[in-house]
Amino acid sequence: MSDDPRLGARPPRRVSRELRPEGTVVDLGRGVLLGGPEVAVMAGPCAVEGRTQILEIAEAVRAAGATVLRGGAFKPRTSPYSFQGLGVRGLELLAEARAATGMPVVTEAVDTESVPIVAEHADMIQVGARNMQNFGLLRRVGRTGKPVLLKRGMGATIDELLLAAEYFLAEGSEAVALCERGVRGFDPAAPHLLDLNAIPLLRTLTHLPLVADPSHGTGVRAHVAPMARAAVAAGADGIIVEVHTNPSEARSDGAQSIYPGQLRELVSECGAVARAVGRSLAPPRSAPAAVAGP
Amino acid sequence: MSDDPRLGARPPRRVSRELRPEGTVVDLGRGVLLGGPEVAVMAGPCAVEGRTQILEIAEAVRAAGATVLRGGAFKPRTSPYSFQGLGVRGLELLAEARAATGMPVVTEAVDTESVPIVAEHADMIQVGARNMQNFGLLRRVGRTGKPVLLKRGMGATIDELLLAAEYFLAEGSEAVALCERGVRGFDPAAPHLLDLNAIPLLRTLTHLPLVADPSHGTGVRAHVAPMARAAVAAGADGIIVEVHTNPSEARSDGAQSIYPGQLRELVSECGAVARAVGRSLAPPRSAPAAVAGP
Amino acid sequence: MSDDPRLGARPPRRVSRELRPEGTVVDLGRGVLLGGPEVAVMAGPCAVEGRTQILEIAEAVRAAGATVLRGGAFKPRTSPYSFQGLGVRGLELLAEARAATGMPVVTEAVDTESVPIVAEHADMIQVGARNMQNFGLLRRVGRTGKPVLLKRGMGATIDELLLAAEYFLAEGSEAVALCERGVRGFDPAAPHLLDLNAIPLLRTLTHLPLVADPSHGTGVRAHVAPMARAAVAAGADGIIVEVHTNPSEARSDGAQSIYPGQLRELVSECGAVARAVGRSLAPPRSAPAAVAGP
Amino acid sequence: MSDDPRLGARPPRRVSRELRPEGTVVDLGRGVLLGGPEVAVMAGPCAVEGRTQILEIAEAVRAAGATVLRGGAFKPRTSPYSFQGLGVRGLELLAEARAATGMPVVTEAVDTESVPIVAEHADMIQVGARNMQNFGLLRRVGRTGKPVLLKRGMGATIDELLLAAEYFLAEGSEAVALCERGVRGFDPAAPHLLDLNAIPLLRTLTHLPLVADPSHGTGVRAHVAPMARAAVAAGADGIIVEVHTNPSEARSDGAQSIYPGQLRELVSECGAVARAVGRSLAPPRSAPAAVAGP
Repeated sequence: MSDDPRLGARPPRRVSRELRPEGTVVDLGRGVLLGGPEVAVMAGPCAVEGRTQILEIAEAVRAAGATVLRGGAFKPRTSPYSFQGLGVRGLELLAEARAATGMPVVTEAVDTESVPIVAEHADMIQVGARNMQNFGLLRRVGRTGKPVLLKRGMGATIDELLLAAEYFLAEGSEAVALCERGVRGFDPAAPHLLDLNAIPLLRTLTHLPLVADPSHGTGVRAHVAPMARAAVAAGADGIIVEVHTNPSEARSDGAQSIYPGQLRELVSECGAVARAVGRSLAPPRSAPAAVAGP
Repeated sequence: MSDDPRLGARPPRRVSRELRPEGTVVDLGRGVLLGGPEVAVMAGPCAVEGRTQILEIAEAVRAAGATVLRGGAFKPRTSPYSFQGLGVRGLELLAEARAATGMPVVTEAVDTESVPIVAEHADMIQVGARNMQNFGLLRRVGRTGKPVLLKRGMGATIDELLLAAEYFLAEGSEAVALCERGVRGFDPAAPHLLDLNAIPLLRTLTHLPLVADPSHGTGVRAHVAPMARAAVAAGADGIIVEVHTNPSEARSDGAQSIYPGQLRELVSECGAVARAVGRSLAPPRSAPAAVAGP
Repeated sequence: MSDDPRLGARPPRRVSRELRPEGTVVDLGRGVLLGGPEVAVMAGPCAVEGRTQILEIAEAVRAAGATVLRGGAFKPRTSPYSFQGLGVRGLELLAEARAATGMPVVTEAVDTESVPIVAEHADMIQVGARNMQNFGLLRRVGRTGKPVLLKRGMGATIDELLLAAEYFLAEGSEAVALCERGVRGFDPAAPHLLDLNAIPLLRTLTHLPLVADPSHGTGVRAHVAPMARAAVAAGADGIIVEVHTNPSEARSDGAQSIYPGQLRELVSECGAVARAVGRSLAPPRSAPAAVAGP
Repeated sequence: MSDDPRLGARPPRRVSRELRPEGTVVDLGRGVLLGGPEVAVMAGPCAVEGRTQILEIAEAVRAAGATVLRGGAFKPRTSPYSFQGLGVRGLELLAEARAATGMPVVTEAVDTESVPIVAEHADMIQVGARNMQNFGLLRRVGRTGKPVLLKRGMGATIDELLLAAEYFLAEGSEAVALCERGVRGFDPAAPHLLDLNAIPLLRTLTHLPLVADPSHGTGVRAHVAPMARAAVAAGADGIIVEVHTNPSEARSDGAQSIYPGQLRELVSECGAVARAVGRSLAPPRSAPAAVAGP
């Protein structure tokens, strides 16, 4: 069903840049801001697979210079037979990784039922591409007041993305960041098409911070770093990348996960690009006290 | 997140045609079968707007030869400020229209909370394009055991559609029909691109009945009838079209809604095409007894 | 380079339906009309490969009920190392096949140099999808005055197709038919997406006859017949299909070529669908006199 | 017509990176190299419109730091009624602008007939997106031995682009650069979709230098600079942008042409990004002697 312009045209959209030309800054806690002068690197595994895995990767991405930890506890899976995530146990492990590394945590909510428990453990709730127009979920997440990372659907227009974000703002939640993560392309050799032009285009349309996901946006490990740099050059406020210490054993998204060593290089390069465009990367989290001992 | 082929590859998919080469027939009740030799025409307004409107349109589409009544009570809307449907009151009106016309009713469930009440009133539950990968909703609908009409997402591949349907079958629900309703195209003059080749392609891949929606698939009233005929010629088991007695006043989808008189012609033409390909249209519902009086 | 609307807006386009609401009929000679009440089936091999091959296939498609013979003598090939066609020898063989079967011939011109020799042998000159915006070729073909079959580019909008056709009309050539042959789609399982909605859409915009190519439009032998039927149901004035007596040995397009026996069924089915929509197929060519002897 | 893998598979492609892992450097003359450590900025008007216009813009882009002059003399136009370029007169004016500024010139050849005269005046011959699969033109341009800038078609896959480039190499011409200029996207608000991921992807597949065109790739003046920076960050060897001193009066592409002052900023920013990724911009051309007087 398309929307009736007679009704949709008013009231004015709360996401519009004209309402807040200076832009919105989203506070993730622990000193991490999204949408200010500093560019944030969000990194971590596709899915939380176990305690050792998430703690090891969390520390690796912290040491590599990431400032936000990503990781899925509830996973939306194309097939009902795929690994669906550790659920609440995954959330608890993410909280433990946050305590160990000092990094705020972004993780996905996949249905209204799990929103409260996700909100309890996460610093930022991700709404994934497949749920961008799951309006009940948008409303429920909006009511938590938690910062939100809203990913663009693979077949969604920019206007649909903005109207989906409007659902949060209509619930009174203003701490929303939008994430370009690749749209459908016609080339079988590159079915994920990272639409970086969405960054400058969205910048003119909305005051919300903008994030790019070069992992899902390319689907290929070797292309993650160049497209992360490109996203920062195009003006992204943050990038979100999948990292795994053992990608070939990852239970999902192995082919697009980079190694911690590659993340370190990516952070260094993105920092240089950020400075080239008059910004800087958010400073890395300091090493946890526990590891500083004798 | 993409899916791990190591896990997704097994067990064999329940939607596969090889498991049931003769095809699945979905029984909507009141003598209407989907997937048998007869082609079903499903018609009605985009949204239930009021008692007079739905009863008038229901009788008009029955008289025009439709065999299933469609109509939205809960509406997923791109904008939070658009008309969201009459909700439970809309369901009750649909049930009243069914009683009056003898047509089984298909209507959409948009979130897990409303699934039970939709299941109580509907003969077939629609899962819309925007919710095709709302996996929690798929599971919840699957558990009702009600027949399902699953619409393909606008940016969804055929494989994703089949895996979404697999969610229902994994819950034990086998009465599922798939609906092609137009995918994203690159031509601004025709952004809706009805992918009719999906009909013969899906026919080789799955045993589930196949429906086409030329209203959303074209977005233009004048193209609904030719594409409905084309869908029947391509082998569709059913078509679903939006009809309104006063499209210019419709609260949604007015531009693609056809008039009852146009539906009558469409039914006649689709009947001729159905016979040309060795099938027939499901016979029209008889006029309600109440109107048969002196 | 996009086009300057200040210049492109005038004079009014010669392709516009409003200039000739009754539609244009293209006369291919030998009694075959395109755009009248009869639907034409154009069939033949992708490429002329040799004398025996083309004469055998030509007779087979005639006997199966096709009314126009298609076949490539000059082939535009994505790779410089692929078979490029028999060239002038191929044209001569097509002329021989026409003499033997009574079917007018449509074949492609791929560059300005070969236009005169193609025009000499062909009844209709095809401009292929890759050359839809090869404006020098369009002009040169237009100057021959021969009927033209203009195929839509795989990434071309409807408006670009119409403006390409305008190049012919601007040269004074009015015998132009437009051919939908599949556009780029995002699904790796079906990269060819036959946009049948282009048929009713173009019908409202232009007076030129409309053809559909379900062979290139689907790329899969099993889908050619259902989509040919669908094209006729949607209102196409003609369909063009690839046929080969030995597809597995075809030097190009084997996977989408149908067998002569399949063409016979397709003709029968399309005839039934044509009658269902108030038209008929062009009558088959009679068997050549030579074969009628004792 | 698709290509027969039996024939297309061999001989090995000359464009493959494995044949020349160190990459190809294309020498445009006057000290400008494409594909070496330095990133080249190519700039100029969409079309040469007159002597004053081209000399003024050429000097402006030189002063702003561009190293190659672009400008169309022969223009491929979607509509036959649009401005088609000044032709040979345009080529002569480009040669005059080269003499005045010291910048090598890249300009388009649109048909085989004009290739010799374009080759005589240009330092690099552009083959435009609409002609990417105009194989006769590719062959004819290849035989000139001139450096070539091959633009990707709007609906062309990466593999088709590489095979089109193969046509030049098969003619013995190795001085070929590939240009990403935006593909078809499904969002009416951004129908041009600059596929920057093509840069790292092509880097792994071919040894040819890679250029990005953010003017056609975005279609919007304000997005040219951010996407130019992004292209350099992604690893492009050059960028090509449209510049006009009076865009609102430009005879084509006004809406996407930037002002000389914007080019100056773009050059400065791209230089900073180039250094951030370990490269540098090609040094600007010195001011012509004539202007160096007292």
